[in-house]
Amino acid sequence: MRIALTGGNGFIGSRIAVQLQREGVETVAIGRQPVAGLPFHRCDLLAEPLEPMIAAVRPTHLLHTAWVSDRRRLWAGTENLEWVAASLRLILAFRAAGGTRAVIAGSCAEYDWSESLLDEATTPLRPSTVYGRSKRALFDLLTQTPELRPLSIGWGRIFFAFGPNDKPDRLLSQIIDGVAAGRIVDCSEGLQIRPFIHVDDAARALVALLSSRVEGAVNIALDETMAVRDLANLAASHAGTTDLLRFGSRPLQAGEPPLLRAKVERLSKEVGFRPLYSIGEGVRATVAERLA
Amino acid sequence: MRIALTGGNGFIGSRIAVQLQREGVETVAIGRQPVAGLPFHRCDLLAEPLEPMIAAVRPTHLLHTAWVSDRRRLWAGTENLEWVAASLRLILAFRAAGGTRAVIAGSCAEYDWSESLLDEATTPLRPSTVYGRSKRALFDLLTQTPELRPLSIGWGRIFFAFGPNDKPDRLLSQIIDGVAAGRIVDCSEGLQIRPFIHVDDAARALVALLSSRVEGAVNIALDETMAVRDLANLAASHAGTTDLLRFGSRPLQAGEPPLLRAKVERLSKEVGFRPLYSIGEGVRATVAERLA
Repeated sequence: MRIALTGGNGFIGSRIAVQLQREGVETVAIGRQPVAGLPFHRCDLLAEPLEPMIAAVRPTHLLHTAWVSDRRRLWAGTENLEWVAASLRLILAFRAAGGTRAVIAGSCAEYDWSESLLDEATTPLRPSTVYGRSKRALFDLLTQTPELRPLSIGWGRIFFAFGPNDKPDRLLSQIIDGVAAGRIVDCSEGLQIRPFIHVDDAARALVALLSSRVEGAVNIALDETMAVRDLANLAASHAGTTDLLRFGSRPLQAGEPPLLRAKVERLSKEVGFRPLYSIGEGVRATVAERLA
Repeated sequence: MRIALTGGNGFIGSRIAVQLQREGVETVAIGRQPVAGLPFHRCDLLAEPLEPMIAAVRPTHLLHTAWVSDRRRLWAGTENLEWVAASLRLILAFRAAGGTRAVIAGSCAEYDWSESLLDEATTPLRPSTVYGRSKRALFDLLTQTPELRPLSIGWGRIFFAFGPNDKPDRLLSQIIDGVAAGRIVDCSEGLQIRPFIHVDDAARALVALLSSRVEGAVNIALDETMAVRDLANLAASHAGTTDLLRFGSRPLQAGEPPLLRAKVERLSKEVGFRPLYSIGEGVRATVAERLA
């Protein structure tokens, strides 16, 4: 097994890189910037021909987590269409060179969020953003083209991942950094309930999916949910105090349903994945690592 | 107006090329092979960076009809995924250079064929082939990404086009060539009813769509249908005799519903298109030109 990893400097990809390095799995990071601790092959996936890169790296496995890196451009930017094109080219080049197994990072944003239990087998794919539609289009093309065989393709639909390496503008980072600095932190009412997952569990689940033979969509999520308000209070409390949180001082973003849960049977039974953290344990570990 | 035309050697694209040339519209053909009568810029859309081509050609309008050229690979081949990637790259490069209007050749194969009246506004897109899913994915991405504005995009869903330049293995060509040579021609029962359209009307409709400001999906079809058996008899009769047709000696292909019709209000009212041929007139013209 020789893995090509894209997005190795990203939020989840960087934790995958650490894990693969620690486990001694032969891995080459592919991208514009080197990834700490991993052999590296420089390649701009958006702009360069990919066949020479694949011929040089000779991966048997592909773990493709690279996507739009500018978060402000993630939901609506035309960069999503560039990544659909680059991802198709990458997987076709990988397959043409004899690659056997690929896992691509999908998203819970592919689902119709008017259903509260998001199930790989039954929930319609009706994304409401350019990001969701782009991931969904790629999913359709890669998992409904029988001629791609013998390449085996798993598609990890990542749910609400959080972790110590979150960007400073993300809620949990704002809370941890704000409380540690003695600042007031504005929050929404926070009544919406989500299946949060620690970034290291999301990373481990994607690696487990890659090592398995499970094909098609697999939710990357815990069978546990928490209200945003409880998550915020927990993080603030671990960081020192909940007194600085101001719930209701921010509006809820449009299109945020009250409850989302993830069906996790494929991940637990077919892939055989066991998480390291409950949501509460994950929050504690996140605060500890971010403040260390 | 300066048009970049892809697929100018294809079944419909070659008739578009003739029409644009005759009308004196400034047009540059883009592709691997020169197109008779048009200025030509050589570019392998599947393999090359497209920005230099766009910078050299400087089109204001793009008419993109290129797709998988090997018909045996059209319905299931992974080449469809290559063309999704190439089409996204082409349209993004065209837009980035200030292109104002693009029309892309879509297909009635994007629709759910369990409905008999295929309507742009109401018929679900539930394609049953890799080809249909690829066109549909591209359609979704190009018409549901508001950030592509100010680029204006029309999507022509082409229905059952026939013409004198059809490949020899297509039914009408087999009939015309077969009857002219005195050969028996095997046909299915031919009871299925379809909205056939002469290739020159399909070409003219795509050019009309390009010249309009109509956005989104537009059926490229006639408001008229004919049973395959009647089409075959008509062609054979114009070619000399119907005695050589053997109906029922070939199975109907799987997934062929008895009746398909096209809603044509967008094309006739919004685009303002008027066909040159009824189906019967189109068949007569096709036989005459093929035997000329």
